[in-house]
Amino acid sequence: MDELMETFIEPKILKGFRDFLPAQQTQRLNLQQKLQKVFASYGYVPIDTPVLEYASILLRKSAGETEKQMFRFVDNGGRDIGLRFDLTVPFARFVAQHKEELYFPFKRYHIAKVFRGEKPQAGRYREFMQCDFDSVGSDSVISDFETLCMIKDALFSVGIKNIKIKINHRGVFNRFLQRLGLTSQSQDILRTVDKLSKIGKDETFNLLQDITKDKGKAQDILTFIAGGGDFLSTLQLIEDAAGGAADDTNRLKQIYDMLCDLGMQDFYALEPCITRGLDYYTGVVFETFLNDLPSIGSVCSGGRYDNLTGLYTKQQISGVGGSVGLDRLIAGMQQLGIGQDAASDIDVMIFFDDRATAATINKSICLAKDLRGLGVSVDLFCEPKKMAVQYAVCEKKGIKYGITANESDFTLKDLATRNTQKLKTAKEIAKVLGK
Amino acid sequence: MDELMETFIEPKILKGFRDFLPAQQTQRLNLQQKLQKVFASYGYVPIDTPVLEYASILLRKSAGETEKQMFRFVDNGGRDIGLRFDLTVPFARFVAQHKEELYFPFKRYHIAKVFRGEKPQAGRYREFMQCDFDSVGSDSVISDFETLCMIKDALFSVGIKNIKIKINHRGVFNRFLQRLGLTSQSQDILRTVDKLSKIGKDETFNLLQDITKDKGKAQDILTFIAGGGDFLSTLQLIEDAAGGAADDTNRLKQIYDMLCDLGMQDFYALEPCITRGLDYYTGVVFETFLNDLPSIGSVCSGGRYDNLTGLYTKQQISGVGGSVGLDRLIAGMQQLGIGQDAASDIDVMIFFDDRATAATINKSICLAKDLRGLGVSVDLFCEPKKMAVQYAVCEKKGIKYGITANESDFTLKDLATRNTQKLKTAKEIAKVLGK
Repeated sequence: MDELMETFIEPKILKGFRDFLPAQQTQRLNLQQKLQKVFASYGYVPIDTPVLEYASILLRKSAGETEKQMFRFVDNGGRDIGLRFDLTVPFARFVAQHKEELYFPFKRYHIAKVFRGEKPQAGRYREFMQCDFDSVGSDSVISDFETLCMIKDALFSVGIKNIKIKINHRGVFNRFLQRLGLTSQSQDILRTVDKLSKIGKDETFNLLQDITKDKGKAQDILTFIAGGGDFLSTLQLIEDAAGGAADDTNRLKQIYDMLCDLGMQDFYALEPCITRGLDYYTGVVFETFLNDLPSIGSVCSGGRYDNLTGLYTKQQISGVGGSVGLDRLIAGMQQLGIGQDAASDIDVMIFFDDRATAATINKSICLAKDLRGLGVSVDLFCEPKKMAVQYAVCEKKGIKYGITANESDFTLKDLATRNTQKLKTAKEIAKVLGK
Repeated sequence: MDELMETFIEPKILKGFRDFLPAQQTQRLNLQQKLQKVFASYGYVPIDTPVLEYASILLRKSAGETEKQMFRFVDNGGRDIGLRFDLTVPFARFVAQHKEELYFPFKRYHIAKVFRGEKPQAGRYREFMQCDFDSVGSDSVISDFETLCMIKDALFSVGIKNIKIKINHRGVFNRFLQRLGLTSQSQDILRTVDKLSKIGKDETFNLLQDITKDKGKAQDILTFIAGGGDFLSTLQLIEDAAGGAADDTNRLKQIYDMLCDLGMQDFYALEPCITRGLDYYTGVVFETFLNDLPSIGSVCSGGRYDNLTGLYTKQQISGVGGSVGLDRLIAGMQQLGIGQDAASDIDVMIFFDDRATAATINKSICLAKDLRGLGVSVDLFCEPKKMAVQYAVCEKKGIKYGITANESDFTLKDLATRNTQKLKTAKEIAKVLGK
């Protein structure tokens, strides 16, 4: 007996990796298609890049935490390779490599899996989906503005409407720090400020005091990032603190005016505490929060940078872009009960019971063909199982209607209400199904 | 100078891997969505599994060529892992692992990347897309039949209509070989027969003679696989050669009758030379050819098997399924000039020239919002470039219309004919664009 058991391999997956069952995967694909549709409606086009790349391409010189988590190995040809850990580095490589074939402004989106060997924990996976969008080759305020609009439309399209997109400008912050004589500590300060919502005001103050060695300056920074209430008051406050109007504050003003022109200003807030810790942002930065679920953090973040391809080429390419955290977004939607219904793309099941005859089987396969021709998605049970089993499958698959072929007509059953009606043709059935 | 140059990393990808530029990727995504739609219309649901799995899961005991090509390494936790090289093994693992959560018959499709470290050559890549579909948990003829119908509909949906789906039954072949006393050599014989179209009749005969050590039997096999012309004559021939009617030939007859009932028989042929070399097929097997391009080989192959999860569990699960070779299909479509137009999902570009004013920019962003609300996909050029540049971008992106905002109206330009018309509202523009 033991010998027999040993011949089987236990079916299991690696820690931090996931299978997606049909209901989940249907939801994930629908979500992706909705986002793709919004991206296309803004003129964004899709690209794809390899999962595996040379390690030398993926590793930045300033190897940070993320780089350390890379799945890296030597292939059979002796090449040092890795699995991509984000979509930004491959995009930079892609633009540098293909710049002669591309056109600018180049607006692309990329929805794909990335891999990080980090410690698995709640909501953290070693394989997860990223959804990046960037518009590169233009420093125009219009591309900043369109990016901010697109994020709102993207979230609306998946049913999330109670959002706040918090924006800021790295340039204003830098001018402010320069005035305080803190330019050399600016990276540390930005990273500290970025954690405000996580660690709280007091801890932020302590850290800022450690960095600046100056209680007054630490307090100035806290006042700066607290803002001044609404968009325009906050803008006035940070403009004054930064030493007056300049390109950066003018751009924030322009963006606000455009948002007002389109009546969308309520979905946006100017929040000087939003800094995005990463070195490479230089202009507008943003994060997106669900008002009904602020605790899950930003579901879409990004900003403007001015040297995308700096590792690969002398040419400076500026752009603005962001990333939707698909897994976080889906977790948030689940908690809020958004988009959890309608998981099925299948309209109707054709049943087979043990009374099925050659004639009714023939009628069933012909009906399936005709209904599909009319745009109806039809499942066919394939074999005569007990009706309880067939109903249970429909429930699992989210199928709302069932059909049984009779000698001279069809019985269509609403599986929720159990109401039935007799119908003669595929056309009649398709009409009831709303097709 | 040299020192400066050295600081850059050459942007390049690994041999056998590919970037997909927007026009290609748009086509690939559209193709996938069309296939998904057909799969859903047959009651198939999507799943996903990890790219990385335990090597022990991926490697079958009888390690074949494919397994040797696996990208395999030890991760930081000391686990022996690999990148999936097909979607069949992960599916078997998935069904064994989740069988309590699933329902049967379980019909799933899976479109995802797989990885093989094979020698890169024309049309062979180390990373490519597979598109698998299976219906498991039923041995019904209806699921065989539905599978064959779905393949036709899938290819029709992407614009390929001149096809022949060649089918056979492994059971008939096995009975035939048993009668010849060749059961123990059957795997070698099936693999040889499978190569008929590649190596020709004479070479096949020689190989068969080597295997069987019997000229007469080699000739009998050649006669068997040559078939007898149309479906029914061929069926008669192989039925006689196999020793008369049995479940296998009855099933082929049933399938043929169903195809005739639906008037689809012309797209199918019974071809006894189709064997699918793999051990695990036991019933109906099939391959799909483009009549206008037979040289590229089968674009969709598969068959029925009776022990999907044999490596992981005692329980025998039978099923029928196949795989669309997406890369081969796309190459074929390219050669045939099918689906090469309409690569763009973007309807219109809003231009900015250097005459743009605050007022026309405002009109432009408002128009973009209104058009998107009407279901029009709108690109916005973002900054005032020369019109020649803006036209060139439209051409690259496949955008057919352009709009310029004037003080009191909009100019809509058909970029192919260069015809222009003046329009006042987003609604009027959407109407012209067919939305």
